[in-house]
Amino acid sequence: MVGDSITEFQEERERLNTIVMRYAGLNMKRFYNLDSQVYREGALPARTKEMLGLVASLVLRCDDCVKYHLVRCREEEVTSDELEEALAVGLVVGGSITIPHLRRAFEAWTQLAGERP
Amino acid sequence: MVGDSITEFQEERERLNTIVMRYAGLNMKRFYNLDSQVYREGALPARTKEMLGLVASLVLRCDDCVKYHLVRCREEEVTSDELEEALAVGLVVGGSITIPHLRRAFEAWTQLAGERP
Amino acid sequence: MVGDSITEFQEERERLNTIVMRYAGLNMKRFYNLDSQVYREGALPARTKEMLGLVASLVLRCDDCVKYHLVRCREEEVTSDELEEALAVGLVVGGSITIPHLRRAFEAWTQLAGERP
Amino acid sequence: MVGDSITEFQEERERLNTIVMRYAGLNMKRFYNLDSQVYREGALPARTKEMLGLVASLVLRCDDCVKYHLVRCREEEVTSDELEEALAVGLVVGGSITIPHLRRAFEAWTQLAGERP
Amino acid sequence: MVGDSITEFQEERERLNTIVMRYAGLNMKRFYNLDSQVYREGALPARTKEMLGLVASLVLRCDDCVKYHLVRCREEEVTSDELEEALAVGLVVGGSITIPHLRRAFEAWTQLAGERP
Amino acid sequence: MVGDSITEFQEERERLNTIVMRYAGLNMKRFYNLDSQVYREGALPARTKEMLGLVASLVLRCDDCVKYHLVRCREEEVTSDELEEALAVGLVVGGSITIPHLRRAFEAWTQLAGERP
Repeated sequence: MVGDSITEFQEERERLNTIVMRYAGLNMKRFYNLDSQVYREGALPARTKEMLGLVASLVLRCDDCVKYHLVRCREEEVTSDELEEALAVGLVVGGSITIPHLRRAFEAWTQLAGERP
Repeated sequence: MVGDSITEFQEERERLNTIVMRYAGLNMKRFYNLDSQVYREGALPARTKEMLGLVASLVLRCDDCVKYHLVRCREEEVTSDELEEALAVGLVVGGSITIPHLRRAFEAWTQLAGERP
Repeated sequence: MVGDSITEFQEERERLNTIVMRYAGLNMKRFYNLDSQVYREGALPARTKEMLGLVASLVLRCDDCVKYHLVRCREEEVTSDELEEALAVGLVVGGSITIPHLRRAFEAWTQLAGERP
Repeated sequence: MVGDSITEFQEERERLNTIVMRYAGLNMKRFYNLDSQVYREGALPARTKEMLGLVASLVLRCDDCVKYHLVRCREEEVTSDELEEALAVGLVVGGSITIPHLRRAFEAWTQLAGERP
Repeated sequence: MVGDSITEFQEERERLNTIVMRYAGLNMKRFYNLDSQVYREGALPARTKEMLGLVASLVLRCDDCVKYHLVRCREEEVTSDELEEALAVGLVVGGSITIPHLRRAFEAWTQLAGERP
Repeated sequence: MVGDSITEFQEERERLNTIVMRYAGLNMKRFYNLDSQVYREGALPARTKEMLGLVASLVLRCDDCVKYHLVRCREEEVTSDELEEALAVGLVVGGSITIPHLRRAFEAWTQLAGERP
């Protein structure tokens, strides 16, 4: 069972995307579309692509992006061991500056796993 | 009429700048001065410069900087269509990692425009 | 008349884009298409959009991207004074770390203007 | 005497590191260890290393990292004048995009110094 | 058969690493060691980890790092279709600013595949 | 005795700065001035400030900036042991993505020290 803050995160994300779409022209809409297409199963499985998105988000240090991909990784049944190894690659590539994001990533993962934080 | 959170943002910004100025030496003060000079009308109109500052802030993913330039864009009577096109350039240059900032940018714009978020 | 190194830059860019397109799937092709659409004249003139792309490229410190937008700025008849002011915004936003790119930007601009570097 | 928000920051940091360590494999643990070793006194004094970590954190724009190094700088008896000069280097290298982080840095420093913000 | 520029890249990399090791203290050596450990097969296969390293390197826009992981991806028998999909994730996350690196990535891949560029 | 490539680096830097100054308006000139003032001896010694500039440049991954500060560190009689420890902080903060720049930093240092690379 998913903890409150993840649910709130997703609702807030939806609320704000609705505002974006009120203003978005064709190019922004195309970008949004592309942003979902690129994670679809293809030569690489969707779960691998979600881990790619996760590690890219960690090294670029975007908490919202990390959280989004964690939700998707959970849906794709990425295990905690797989997750830890993916994040370890991100930590070594991106350095200690990623640690605050790593902390929040594992906290969100704990919530997603239904464990007490 | 501007929504509360923009007003609060500006008051907080002022409060913190006062703290900075309590410590700032000559070089920091010069930087602050330069940071306002560079947006003054010249060969380029102030409104174009504010859009340059806005897009630079979006691709560097600084919410506070984005919000500041949105306030200034509004004062310079940048339209919602112009804003959307400027942000679309930033989105394509900076990628999906800018989307969380884009969302918060449009929310702030909605507040600035006096519409309900 | 444009100096050699700009011509070589454009030829190399074409050569490499041909290689990309040999591998590119639908999503990459869509991204490339979006990347040209977003600079088209709309509510904002094309020349303003090129300056937005230029400053975004400067603060993100991408020499190739800066050079590309300089060529386009020249085509859109951006003046040297306008260019200097746009780059000054980028310099103040992005800091001294952008200076090596600023140097190469002005050198390319000199070549584009047909002056001796 | 240290203000509340610094204490809360340190407690939250501890709480989250405990979660990280629940998942961390050998490589993450080694990284955490390395991250503390590298600031130990050696050819350079610990206080110089903390200022290096501080300025690196400012230009990479990580509030949590800045705050952590401020706490350590205070422990190493870095003076407010030394701090201002170190942050001024960071401001000029990193540009105006670092200003929101600079503001929060000086606010935290005020708290660490036991002065009213 | 691998083209010249990849061989030269690897030899130059070795030559420079030898210089680093002449100066490196214990912490740098530990970092280098960690940097190879983290890509070892574990819960995730080595090939997945190399793709994670590749996409992280693309979004952070490091040509040398991209090239290194391309060599490793080739050794791990990543196919061109898999590679294209991984890089497409990086392109969408990191935006058009990654395109110059994407171009050089595919050129290196062409060399690694023994095809004429 | 300084090796050729450092001399060439400095001459090229001068040549390009001359081009910048041909275009630079008052704000750019002020920025350039600020960029030299901020490293002047004050509460912190010039050598500490050069190391701050060096580590900031390493984590932001700017080879030209790293090289410039290495020249200055050498002039300020920073020892190889001090340099290694400063760069180790940068490596851990910035991660493996800084390694290509670290390699080139030590190569330049070898040249500056008059040793054979």
